[in-house]
Amino acid sequence: MIKKQIAECIGTFTLVLFGCGSAVIAGADIGLTGISFAFGLALIGMAYAIGPVSGCHINPAVSLGAVAAGRMQLSEAVQYIIAQVAGATLAALVLLLVLSGKADYSVAQNGLGQNGWGVGYLGEYSMVSAFVFEVVATFLFMIVILGATGKTAPAAMAGLAIGLALVVIHLVGINVTGVSVNPARSFGPALFAGTAALSQLWLFIVAPIIGAVAAGLLFKSGLLDADE
Amino acid sequence: MIKKQIAECIGTFTLVLFGCGSAVIAGADIGLTGISFAFGLALIGMAYAIGPVSGCHINPAVSLGAVAAGRMQLSEAVQYIIAQVAGATLAALVLLLVLSGKADYSVAQNGLGQNGWGVGYLGEYSMVSAFVFEVVATFLFMIVILGATGKTAPAAMAGLAIGLALVVIHLVGINVTGVSVNPARSFGPALFAGTAALSQLWLFIVAPIIGAVAAGLLFKSGLLDADE
Amino acid sequence: MIKKQIAECIGTFTLVLFGCGSAVIAGADIGLTGISFAFGLALIGMAYAIGPVSGCHINPAVSLGAVAAGRMQLSEAVQYIIAQVAGATLAALVLLLVLSGKADYSVAQNGLGQNGWGVGYLGEYSMVSAFVFEVVATFLFMIVILGATGKTAPAAMAGLAIGLALVVIHLVGINVTGVSVNPARSFGPALFAGTAALSQLWLFIVAPIIGAVAAGLLFKSGLLDADE
Amino acid sequence: MIKKQIAECIGTFTLVLFGCGSAVIAGADIGLTGISFAFGLALIGMAYAIGPVSGCHINPAVSLGAVAAGRMQLSEAVQYIIAQVAGATLAALVLLLVLSGKADYSVAQNGLGQNGWGVGYLGEYSMVSAFVFEVVATFLFMIVILGATGKTAPAAMAGLAIGLALVVIHLVGINVTGVSVNPARSFGPALFAGTAALSQLWLFIVAPIIGAVAAGLLFKSGLLDADE
Repeated sequence: MIKKQIAECIGTFTLVLFGCGSAVIAGADIGLTGISFAFGLALIGMAYAIGPVSGCHINPAVSLGAVAAGRMQLSEAVQYIIAQVAGATLAALVLLLVLSGKADYSVAQNGLGQNGWGVGYLGEYSMVSAFVFEVVATFLFMIVILGATGKTAPAAMAGLAIGLALVVIHLVGINVTGVSVNPARSFGPALFAGTAALSQLWLFIVAPIIGAVAAGLLFKSGLLDADE
Repeated sequence: MIKKQIAECIGTFTLVLFGCGSAVIAGADIGLTGISFAFGLALIGMAYAIGPVSGCHINPAVSLGAVAAGRMQLSEAVQYIIAQVAGATLAALVLLLVLSGKADYSVAQNGLGQNGWGVGYLGEYSMVSAFVFEVVATFLFMIVILGATGKTAPAAMAGLAIGLALVVIHLVGINVTGVSVNPARSFGPALFAGTAALSQLWLFIVAPIIGAVAAGLLFKSGLLDADE
Repeated sequence: MIKKQIAECIGTFTLVLFGCGSAVIAGADIGLTGISFAFGLALIGMAYAIGPVSGCHINPAVSLGAVAAGRMQLSEAVQYIIAQVAGATLAALVLLLVLSGKADYSVAQNGLGQNGWGVGYLGEYSMVSAFVFEVVATFLFMIVILGATGKTAPAAMAGLAIGLALVVIHLVGINVTGVSVNPARSFGPALFAGTAALSQLWLFIVAPIIGAVAAGLLFKSGLLDADE
Repeated sequence: MIKKQIAECIGTFTLVLFGCGSAVIAGADIGLTGISFAFGLALIGMAYAIGPVSGCHINPAVSLGAVAAGRMQLSEAVQYIIAQVAGATLAALVLLLVLSGKADYSVAQNGLGQNGWGVGYLGEYSMVSAFVFEVVATFLFMIVILGATGKTAPAAMAGLAIGLALVVIHLVGINVTGVSVNPARSFGPALFAGTAALSQLWLFIVAPIIGAVAAGLLFKSGLLDADE
C-alpha cells in the first residue's frame, strides 16, 4: 500500500506544482490555453509514470467516484485521499519556495493558482454557475476516466484521453472557477492563498465529489458500461 | 440500444458544452486556437469514454456517412441522431444556465457558439464559401473516421486521429462558418441564439450530410478502403 | 495501384488545404503556433486515414527518401509524386474558391500560403538560411519517418510521431521559409501565388529532396537502422 | 555502440536545434506556449525515431539517472553523454548558421536559447529558485521516464508521455530558468552565447543530475517501481 500512497502523493504534487505553477509563474505569458495544457499534460505524464502503480487518481473525487463505480474499496480510497492532499499541500509549499525568489511576486497580488468565483475572480461568475460547472465537468471527466479504463477500451490510450479531457475542461472553465474538478488541487493552494480561497473551498470539495460519484453510479448501474 | 443512445446523448452533450462553451466563456482569452483544441479534445475524450459503447459518432452526418459506407443500418442511425440532437440541445441549455451567472453576458451580444456566415459573422465569408467549406471539410473528416476505424488501421489510435482532425478543421474554418461538420452541434445553439442562426441552420444540416455521405460512398466503392 | 494514388491525392489535398488554408484564412488569429499545429494535425489525420492504403507519404521528398532507403521502387514513387502534385494543385484551387467568397481577400495582398525567403517574406532570412533550414529539417523529418516506421518501433504511434515532428518543424521554421520540407506542398500554392513564389520554387524542390534522400541513405547504410 | 552514439547525437541535435531554434527564430511570434511545445514535440519525434536504437535519452542527466536506477552501465552512459554534448554543440552551430542569414539578428541581442537566471533573464528569478526548480523538475521528469518505460507500462506510449511532460515543464519553468533539465541542452548554446551563460552553466549541469539521480535511486529502492 505504501507504494501506492507514494505514487499518489508524487502524482498530485506534480499536478498542482505544474498546473498552478503554470498559472502563477507563466500565466501572463501562456494565457488560459497554456495553463489548460499544463494541467492536462501534467496528468498525462503522471498517468504513464505512476499509473502502473496506483492507477494515478491524484484526485479525491476520482477515488470516490471509483468507489461509487464499485472499482475500489472505500478504505483504500481514504488512504489515497490522504496521500493526494499531502502531495497537493507539498506542491503549494514548493511553489511558494520558487516564487520567493522573484522580487515582484506576492501571494496577495498574484495568488497561488487557487480556485474561486464571484466579484474579483476571473470571469466573475456566480456561485451557482461555479457549482453547476464543477458538478457537470467532474461528471463528464469521471465518465471519460471510467469509460477509457473499461475492459473493452484500449488500455494504453486511457491516460492520454483522460489528460486531454482535463485540458478541454480547463479551456472552458478557467474563467468560471479556475477549474477544480479535484478537491486536493483546490486544497493545497487555498491553504496559503488567503481567506477568500479558504472560505470558498467547500464548493471545490462538494461539487466535484457529487459529479464524480454520479458518474460512478451511472457506470455501476450498467447503463453506460460497455463491459456489461 | 438504450445504452448506445445514452452514450451518444452524453457524447454530443460534451462536444457542444465544451466546444461552444469554450467559444462563449473563454473565446476572448483562448482565441481560435484554444477553441479549436476544445472541440477536438472533447471528441477525443468521448471517443475513448463512450467509443466502446456506441462508436462515439456524436454527429448525425457521421452516422449517415456510416450508413452510406455500409457500416450501419439506417434505422439505428435514426436512433443515434435523436440522441445526438437531444444531447446537443441539453448542452445549449446547461451552457445558458452557466452563463446566466455572469453579469455582462447576453445571448444577443455574445452568442452561444452558433454557426453562420455572411455580414457580421466572423470572417464574413459568403454562403458559397460556407457551403463549399462544410462539404469538403466533412468529406475529409469522414475519410479520417472511416479510414482510421478500418480493419487494417490501428484501432486504438482512431479516436485520437479523428479528434485531432477536428482540431485542424476548426483551425482553418472557424472564420468561415464557425465550423459545423455536425448538424447536431449546429442545432443545439441555434435553437436559443436568435433568428439569424435558425435561418442559416439548413446549410449546416445539408452540407455536412453531403460531405459525409460522399465519403461513405467512396469507401463503399472500395476505391479507398484498405480492407478490400 | 489506383487506390494508392487516390489516397496520396486526397492526403496531399488535405495537407495543403488545411495547412495553407489555416495560414491564409486564420493566420492573423491563430498565429504561427496555430498554423504549425494545422500542418501537423492534418498529417496525423491522414496518416491514420490513408496510411493503411498508401503509407501516407503525401510528399515527393518522402517518397524519394523511401526509395533511397530501399523501401520503395522508383517507378512507384513516380506514380505517388504525380498524385501528390495533383492533390496539392487541387487544394490550392479549392482554397481559392473558398477565399473568393471573402470581400477583402486578394492573392496579391494575402498570399496563398506559399513558401519563400528574402526581403518581404516573413522573417526575411537569406537564401542560404532557407536552403540550410530546408535540407536539415527535411533530413530530420525523414529520420523520424524512417525510424518511427521501422520494424522495431511501435507501428501504431508512427503517424502521431511524424505529425508532431511536422508541428515542431513549423514552429521553428515558418519565419525562415514558411516551411516546405515537401515539394508538392510548395508547388500547389506557388502556381497561383504570383511570380515571386514561382521563381523561388526550385529551392523547395531541391532542398527537401536532398535532405530526405540523405536520411534515406543513412538508414540504408545501416548506421541508424534498429532493424539491422 | 556506434549506432547508439549516432542516434544520441542526432537526437540531441534535433532537440536543441528545434527547441532553442523555436525560441530564437520564432519566440516573439509563438510565445512561451509555442516554445514549450517545440521542445516537447522534438523529443517525441526523436523518441519514436531513435528510441528503438538507443532509447532516446538525448540528455546526460537522463543517462545518469538510468545508471542510478540500475538500468544502464556507467561506461555506456559516458559514451552516450559524449554523443549528446556533440549533438547539442553541432545544433548550436547550425542554428547560428541559419541565423546568420537574418539581417537584424545578433547573439548579444537575441541570444541563442541559453538558460540562465537573475537580473535581465526572463522572469528574473533568484539562483535558489532556479536551483530548486531544476532539481524538482528533473526529478519529476525522470520519474515519468522511468515509470513510463517500466515493464508494466504500455511501452508504445512512453515517448509520447515523456515528451508531453517536457512540454508542461517548459510551460511552467521558462520564466524561471528557460528550462534546462538537460545539461547538454544548456551546454550547446552556452558555448556561443556569451559569458553570462557560461558562468551560470554549472547550475544546469549540477541541478538536473541531482534531480535525475534522485529519481533513479527512488526507483532502484523499489518504492515506486511497479515492476517489483
